[in-house]
Amino acid sequence: MSIRRPLSGPIGFNAQHSPMGAFMSFTCGNPGTKGGIGLQIGQPADQEVFIGVIDGDRYADATLKCLPFYVGAASNAAEAFMVEQAGPQEANVRPDAEPFAPAEIKRSYNWASDTWTAGDLSFSVFTPFGPIPDPAKAPDREMRDALRPGIVAQLIIDNTKGAKPKTGIFALNHSRPGPRMIEDDLGGSARVGFAFRREAGVAGEVVDITGAAKADKPHAFGFMRWSATDGIREKHNPVHLLGSCPGIGFEVPPGKRYALTLAIGSYLESPVTTGLDGKYLYTRYFNGLNDVLRATLDVAGKVIEQADALDEKLESSALSDDQKFLIAHATHSYYGSTQMLEIDKQPFWVVNEGEYCMMNTLDLSVDHVFWELDHNPWVVKNLLDNFVARYSYTDEVKIYKAEAAAAHSLEHDPSQPPLAPDAAQLSRPYGTAPGGLSFCHDMGAHNNFSPKGRSSYELANLTSTFSYMTVEQLCNWTLTAGCYLAKTHDTAWLKKSKKVVEQCLESMINRGGETGFAQYDSTKTAGGQEITTYDSLDHSLAQTRNNVYMAVKCWASYRTLALMFRDLGDKKAAARCQELAERVAGVVADQAVDGVLPAIFEKDNPGYHSRILPAVEGCVYPLYYAETGYAGISAAEVYASAAEKRMYDALKTHTKTLLLDPEARSVFADGGIKLSSTSNNSWMSKIAIFMHVTRKVFGLDADVAEVFKKADAAHTTWQTVGSAYWACSDQIVSGEGKASRYYPRIITSALWLS
Amino acid sequence: MSIRRPLSGPIGFNAQHSPMGAFMSFTCGNPGTKGGIGLQIGQPADQEVFIGVIDGDRYADATLKCLPFYVGAASNAAEAFMVEQAGPQEANVRPDAEPFAPAEIKRSYNWASDTWTAGDLSFSVFTPFGPIPDPAKAPDREMRDALRPGIVAQLIIDNTKGAKPKTGIFALNHSRPGPRMIEDDLGGSARVGFAFRREAGVAGEVVDITGAAKADKPHAFGFMRWSATDGIREKHNPVHLLGSCPGIGFEVPPGKRYALTLAIGSYLESPVTTGLDGKYLYTRYFNGLNDVLRATLDVAGKVIEQADALDEKLESSALSDDQKFLIAHATHSYYGSTQMLEIDKQPFWVVNEGEYCMMNTLDLSVDHVFWELDHNPWVVKNLLDNFVARYSYTDEVKIYKAEAAAAHSLEHDPSQPPLAPDAAQLSRPYGTAPGGLSFCHDMGAHNNFSPKGRSSYELANLTSTFSYMTVEQLCNWTLTAGCYLAKTHDTAWLKKSKKVVEQCLESMINRGGETGFAQYDSTKTAGGQEITTYDSLDHSLAQTRNNVYMAVKCWASYRTLALMFRDLGDKKAAARCQELAERVAGVVADQAVDGVLPAIFEKDNPGYHSRILPAVEGCVYPLYYAETGYAGISAAEVYASAAEKRMYDALKTHTKTLLLDPEARSVFADGGIKLSSTSNNSWMSKIAIFMHVTRKVFGLDADVAEVFKKADAAHTTWQTVGSAYWACSDQIVSGEGKASRYYPRIITSALWLS
Repeated sequence: MSIRRPLSGPIGFNAQHSPMGAFMSFTCGNPGTKGGIGLQIGQPADQEVFIGVIDGDRYADATLKCLPFYVGAASNAAEAFMVEQAGPQEANVRPDAEPFAPAEIKRSYNWASDTWTAGDLSFSVFTPFGPIPDPAKAPDREMRDALRPGIVAQLIIDNTKGAKPKTGIFALNHSRPGPRMIEDDLGGSARVGFAFRREAGVAGEVVDITGAAKADKPHAFGFMRWSATDGIREKHNPVHLLGSCPGIGFEVPPGKRYALTLAIGSYLESPVTTGLDGKYLYTRYFNGLNDVLRATLDVAGKVIEQADALDEKLESSALSDDQKFLIAHATHSYYGSTQMLEIDKQPFWVVNEGEYCMMNTLDLSVDHVFWELDHNPWVVKNLLDNFVARYSYTDEVKIYKAEAAAAHSLEHDPSQPPLAPDAAQLSRPYGTAPGGLSFCHDMGAHNNFSPKGRSSYELANLTSTFSYMTVEQLCNWTLTAGCYLAKTHDTAWLKKSKKVVEQCLESMINRGGETGFAQYDSTKTAGGQEITTYDSLDHSLAQTRNNVYMAVKCWASYRTLALMFRDLGDKKAAARCQELAERVAGVVADQAVDGVLPAIFEKDNPGYHSRILPAVEGCVYPLYYAETGYAGISAAEVYASAAEKRMYDALKTHTKTLLLDPEARSVFADGGIKLSSTSNNSWMSKIAIFMHVTRKVFGLDADVAEVFKKADAAHTTWQTVGSAYWACSDQIVSGEGKASRYYPRIITSALWLS
Repeated sequence: MSIRRPLSGPIGFNAQHSPMGAFMSFTCGNPGTKGGIGLQIGQPADQEVFIGVIDGDRYADATLKCLPFYVGAASNAAEAFMVEQAGPQEANVRPDAEPFAPAEIKRSYNWASDTWTAGDLSFSVFTPFGPIPDPAKAPDREMRDALRPGIVAQLIIDNTKGAKPKTGIFALNHSRPGPRMIEDDLGGSARVGFAFRREAGVAGEVVDITGAAKADKPHAFGFMRWSATDGIREKHNPVHLLGSCPGIGFEVPPGKRYALTLAIGSYLESPVTTGLDGKYLYTRYFNGLNDVLRATLDVAGKVIEQADALDEKLESSALSDDQKFLIAHATHSYYGSTQMLEIDKQPFWVVNEGEYCMMNTLDLSVDHVFWELDHNPWVVKNLLDNFVARYSYTDEVKIYKAEAAAAHSLEHDPSQPPLAPDAAQLSRPYGTAPGGLSFCHDMGAHNNFSPKGRSSYELANLTSTFSYMTVEQLCNWTLTAGCYLAKTHDTAWLKKSKKVVEQCLESMINRGGETGFAQYDSTKTAGGQEITTYDSLDHSLAQTRNNVYMAVKCWASYRTLALMFRDLGDKKAAARCQELAERVAGVVADQAVDGVLPAIFEKDNPGYHSRILPAVEGCVYPLYYAETGYAGISAAEVYASAAEKRMYDALKTHTKTLLLDPEARSVFADGGIKLSSTSNNSWMSKIAIFMHVTRKVFGLDADVAEVFKKADAAHTTWQTVGSAYWACSDQIVSGEGKASRYYPRIITSALWLS
């Protein structure tokens, strides 16, 4: 594996390396912290990862030099130096391993691979992705290939210039008790492996890749003691079944170059979820961990080829290096959150919400939809149906009696308990009116499906984080369905879902009042108020009512519904939707003052003075309908009506003004994009959509090129430095990954490829 | 539940509360640390346990007063006091809970119950135990009762003297994500519950136990937020599915006394072990966690009665309070380590080794055998057969060529990696001679069964901890089989096992050389030497060869084999065994110098100057054969031959001399028993056997009464203070539980009841 293109910036950040749908990640990259194989968790796992080389045979009195993926590795280069200066007693204590110095290490980070080189060592992880076929249609062989819960890695030791043997090792030092050597056949005597109980493991085999006429048939060896070096150097008992650090090693004779190919996999056999009894769909196609590891090694060559092809595809795109990095990083973390279950003998697709592990958060699903539709549209249908069947509800809306000032949301970290309800808001008197259908924020959390009609997230009587997102989720389901239809033209599904579509329109109308969008809070909020997906942002994006972001999203939802009614042959309803779309567009356009739109259309609301870039977000859906041919019109024609043209102009001017603003209200000091002029909390996934709309809908490429280039560089640093431990993070506060870490949603950046 | 007999000494220590065979423990008691429900782990779990009362209704502005089973509880009584003196800002921050002051709390700790009282609150946990029937013979109903993986607890709030409501709560604050409320039917609408994912949970129901003519029908309520008080006081959203601290609460009106009965249970459905695919046998009788919790609540009344009866049985014995405490504590920790599996459709009994979680460590099994045979002899047969079928091996023995001094073992903490092999020992030249059958130290660790013929523990080329215990385990299997036959007279099993018995004798002889016992190390040790179960003790007990403890154990093994051959009708072999027994006894007797026996019979060995009390341990088996009637002779008649009478006298004098020694070589400063005069490491399980032999074999009751009384008091303090976090610990170094913690083996103390 030659290194593709070394990163030019900081390289010490974690990456998730994951198969598709296994909710598994092999995580490494951040110096000095634990990682390794993590299953069903929203953070790096708890193993120290030793990937290294000894300049000598396995028993040599030489230091194990490692990539810095273990505790102490970030600091003990200095310690190692001090040992040389220490007295005889200290000098006898050789550190277990010594990290390569930062300057010795290069890293290439690609769409489906991650490669480290240091000295004579190179280590790559390959995670190609692709369509997950519909198990109702695909043969088992294809399903095995798509759902194999294992990834491939390769450790190459180049000793072509050496005069004595070198020894390569890969070992995981476990914090929890239970590692073991694999004693069963892994597909040939040359393969060795280790595992953690029944659930995860690693298998490896070595090949001679020197390229000489007559290749060696080298053998790997297993070991397990209480540290990496103890295991490798132990002559008498390389394996102690009580040991914590199993590993695989191999010796490379002088003049040779060997590759240790590794399968890193998992297998959870029993139901893993509650509420609904879900087990991994892969259990239908694999009979256990050994089967997974064996199969992964068997196809390692093909896997590497697939990864190469994907790497090449991204590399050859017209995007900048920063853009490519962000897409690659997003893709890595996206798959780490995916979980393909089987419930009642049917597949059930779950994307877990990063560190929070909420299941199928609908305001994430709507953002993932473009990616999913490019790969496996059937999982989108699966998701839409599951929301209708189990995670929908019908409510009423609240009509406030007095025009007392609403409570104002505050920024709030969603990893923390909710704030106390706001007393003024709670006591605001209201009557009720018909509401209608909407959808839950999510389907549960941490493998616990929530009861029917309830999310794990939403609570009553709140005005900020953890309140209901009724209008937002109604739009999200509608827009997701629209994208699904745009991509698939699955009219059969649309006809089956006709009643739901009608209910969505009715519900939109009931919530929209005079203006047609988001005027009333759901009675689900009781004394609280609805919020948006930007739950921990300030008043500019947290409040649903009269929010410009929601207005444009509602407009897009009406446009979506119009297309659905068109295909259902209901011309009247289609016309009504178009009329509502225009009404909302007109309202939005009317709010513009001095070329910008207020975040909240209420003059006494502090959000009136905020400026938010996600105002334009809703425009991405009609763009998609145009691009896919679903709408039957060009992107420009979307804004053909007078009101919509006015909104288009207002949004375009708003965007341009804010981005090129001499006051730089929408840009951080580092050049990164600031979604709200009044908050230091910004969301990378949403920035990606905003950028896409700015370029593709408003055609502002040339105007904002310089701003976006600087922004891309800043966003890269947010991830590689500000979120180094947490892999890909969404919520960045002043450049640091503060919330929504280890997150799938940044996959919206893949829109840039379109 | 009135408190039976409050402990007079320290009460702040953890206790394991466990069903039989579920490898589960609900642990609480040690102030200020985490505990709660732990599955398949050798230490207290990771939940904060809130058991408390609010002086008011659930929303009252009053402090939640709790038993101190949560982080900070050991110190924040002081903090609470400081709040009163603080300024207005600090005074507003009420601590989440305030622990009862130590002086307010009483605890009664019994064989099958553990009760805390404080103020108007009392909390009891009931863990009755009894026979586990053989599933091949017992109806499912009985198996359900024996293997139900749940325990019963009860929280009583007495408000008979109150003028306003009081509120009781039981809550577990989880460190890992995944708690949930149970939404399914738990056997009636009055029952509520919560769980952690699929694996563990709590269900409760409240009853009015005031005793008035007309009882209330009170209801419990569930809650789950991010802290105990947040959940209970929350009017709008008592349950947040993202919360970490689920609980059950109930309000008690003035004049009333209510009891919240709790079922605390677990359910692991899939195979949990590797090497052999074992799942819990209870899965054959229960269909899930809800079934377990429902069934546990259904029989709660009966469970409490059973616990009462067991408590009464121990309480009414003639033992001292300290002795009763040690037996009760040992029993609690014993069941916490038990695991009844099903492998290949057959039951498979495992006792895990406390904190180390080694499975069926044979040198523990031989000590547990008396307890097992009193309760469920069939599991002993199960164990013996499993050792023969899978965990036995055949070796040769080493005959050292030169009489170079052997390496001397050092004290070593078995939780640490093994020491480096001893260079002198490793290079000692040897030839080989036939060895024979022996048994592995254990069957694996941490749910990983080790490969056939291998233990997880034993390694070659070592002279101390982690070396082989070949002779020790050969004796242990033989003695365990002897006890099984003594109790059951299962001649059919003996006949089936005839060949194994013959191999045991042959192996004993091959290892015994001239003296008949433990002269040669197994070739399994390679360059190392065999050790005994006292692996981390010094030279006095670690070395097998020529050890007085091993000599007497070998003598007992020959006596055992003689009885087996008697029953097999092989008079010649029986006579040979008796001859060997006498030979060994004679050798032991000959070693006495000045009324005491050296630990090691080699004059140039440092162990020659050590004095060990376990010299007498082997005498417990012939005693058992006499008491059960198996031997057909009285305990005194065991020592009828001249040589055995001489050994008896020597051992008796040895014991008496050491215990009454003016130098107190065998007693710690606190009065606790010191097993080896040269080590500060003592083993409670072995002290218990030693005491039993001293009383029952040597009839020294009166002579040592004062010494043993002081010792019992010290041993109680070792556990309640020196091992407060670790529940029952075996290896105590100078009064502190340093190793073998959370341990089952102290169940040997139940011998005192016989």
